[in-house]
Amino acid sequence: MSNCVAIEWLGEELRLLDQRVLPEATLMISCRNATEVTEAIRGMVVRGAPAIGISAAYGLVLAARGCPESADRGKWMSDARDLLAASRPTAVNLFWALDRMQDAVAAFVNNGSAAIAGLEAEAVKIHQEDVLANETMGELGADLIADRPGMAVLTHCNTGSLATGGYGTALGVIRSAWQRELITRVYADETRPWFQGARLTAWELQQEGIEARLIADSAAAHVMATGEVSWVIVGADRIASNGDTANKIGTYGLAVLARYHKVRFMVVAPSGTVDFDIPDGRAIPIEERGGEEVTHFRGQAIAPPDMRAYNPVFDVTPAHLIDAIVTEKGVVLKPDADKMRAIIA
Amino acid sequence: MSNCVAIEWLGEELRLLDQRVLPEATLMISCRNATEVTEAIRGMVVRGAPAIGISAAYGLVLAARGCPESADRGKWMSDARDLLAASRPTAVNLFWALDRMQDAVAAFVNNGSAAIAGLEAEAVKIHQEDVLANETMGELGADLIADRPGMAVLTHCNTGSLATGGYGTALGVIRSAWQRELITRVYADETRPWFQGARLTAWELQQEGIEARLIADSAAAHVMATGEVSWVIVGADRIASNGDTANKIGTYGLAVLARYHKVRFMVVAPSGTVDFDIPDGRAIPIEERGGEEVTHFRGQAIAPPDMRAYNPVFDVTPAHLIDAIVTEKGVVLKPDADKMRAIIA
Repeated sequence: MSNCVAIEWLGEELRLLDQRVLPEATLMISCRNATEVTEAIRGMVVRGAPAIGISAAYGLVLAARGCPESADRGKWMSDARDLLAASRPTAVNLFWALDRMQDAVAAFVNNGSAAIAGLEAEAVKIHQEDVLANETMGELGADLIADRPGMAVLTHCNTGSLATGGYGTALGVIRSAWQRELITRVYADETRPWFQGARLTAWELQQEGIEARLIADSAAAHVMATGEVSWVIVGADRIASNGDTANKIGTYGLAVLARYHKVRFMVVAPSGTVDFDIPDGRAIPIEERGGEEVTHFRGQAIAPPDMRAYNPVFDVTPAHLIDAIVTEKGVVLKPDADKMRAIIA
Repeated sequence: MSNCVAIEWLGEELRLLDQRVLPEATLMISCRNATEVTEAIRGMVVRGAPAIGISAAYGLVLAARGCPESADRGKWMSDARDLLAASRPTAVNLFWALDRMQDAVAAFVNNGSAAIAGLEAEAVKIHQEDVLANETMGELGADLIADRPGMAVLTHCNTGSLATGGYGTALGVIRSAWQRELITRVYADETRPWFQGARLTAWELQQEGIEARLIADSAAAHVMATGEVSWVIVGADRIASNGDTANKIGTYGLAVLARYHKVRFMVVAPSGTVDFDIPDGRAIPIEERGGEEVTHFRGQAIAPPDMRAYNPVFDVTPAHLIDAIVTEKGVVLKPDADKMRAIIA
């Protein structure tokens, strides 16, 4: 898993590691056009804000490759973009990556197949830059932990190789901190309802040989009360101009609990996760997914028939509960709009 | 389920509704001696602090019935008591019920089978009193909610008919409040790792026709942030002299979140749940159960092989985070040792 490839680009197809069936099965899903990439994102074959963005970029390359000679290239590419953009609403990396591809898409619309190589190069660059950004963030985040070494950290959801181009955001910081012997242990929230922590983070931590304990999400407060935890470290799906951060459901509660227990709270995300178009977290759309993600497990009912569930899959943590936002462009301590703009924009 | 019988006493046997397989299957397990009752408690055929206490009391009756003529009755009954007492460590109702049976047990030790009727009468009385206590608490708790009517409440774990002699503690308050049209909706935490909320509370709420939404435990903070919730209402497994309360893992975190969001926090438990022998929550033993409760679901692996989990199944909420402790003897507002003793002891 340290060498795990969640996103593999083969030029004519995008191969995605099917994260719905991990760790029981290791299955690659092949996407050959923008529709298949969209379905893979919506169905959570691939998940994690950075990985979604990278996949969408490759989706545009596949769209261009599949564009019929007779087609109106402008409309074709615009349709592909709209399709991909509608796959999931919260992670801004999706829209950021589609925007980053815009010039290369325009070149293709103008010049046709001769410009596909440029489109492909841009997508590959987005992918490679994400890995480099993760490595930079890993060191910057570990530097923060170095102020309070020899304690445990707690993380939520999956933010590792599987969620990114490689290495990871929050999990990248944890990898770096572990390599530098700054932390004693990782408490990994199982992360209901999708069990990203149990299925994915646990697996990545095992592969790295990092000392870890899986916990029920609701055990986090009890763990913090022991005084063993120095930092809660999470990723982000969208960060507003002022530092308000949308991330996996449960993140906001962890931030409240961390503040109560004097545990520090770190958000780790590439700069593409910051949405300077919105002033604060109230403007971030929160995706609700089907109740069956809560009432069922692998098709088996947990709850009685027809029980209604409320399943918001993200929540918003206000900036004032965040001690540090770590990006590849630098660290924003006690984030506010001015610092965010000065360091990241 | 409003008429659900989780504990059925047949005189020669104790029949327990198997809560491990609900709601998929409705299966009664028959216990004919103290060993079988102990196994049923340890294995969570029966769970919920009051239900455990009632079951243990019946376990002593079965022990007396099964006592051979030739046996040393004192040792026989003492062994049965020790067995039952070792079934689970946290819920004090277990020890409370065993203590309540002590005089009747002594009469049996002295007088033999002639005293079994008295032993049985005491166990039945414990059971019946629990139902009455629940009904009283239901009204007292609903009276508190009446100060802020027309909002939702949030509950954790299962505290209904299945967890008690009948009606329920926290869920009894919710039943009463719903009947009195004081609440609009119940958010029921699914309650990992054992899914008491999804499997048991959801079922009881459905049977009562109470408007309810099942949520992942970690969605509670997001729900509270909407301002829709007036009270978090939970049960208790043991309450210390000063009001510190041990309850299902996750309860403590909810109390911190409730305070942060200015949501009130109510603990509902019969007076037998209060342990006046211990000064505060630090003295309450917290049961840890096997990691497989977190890593597996119905025998299927969720996490990768050999992943280690930390599975404390209770936590302690300090009294200062509790707005009201509701018992059948009265309501203790902003609990402390003096008020607890004055109202409950």
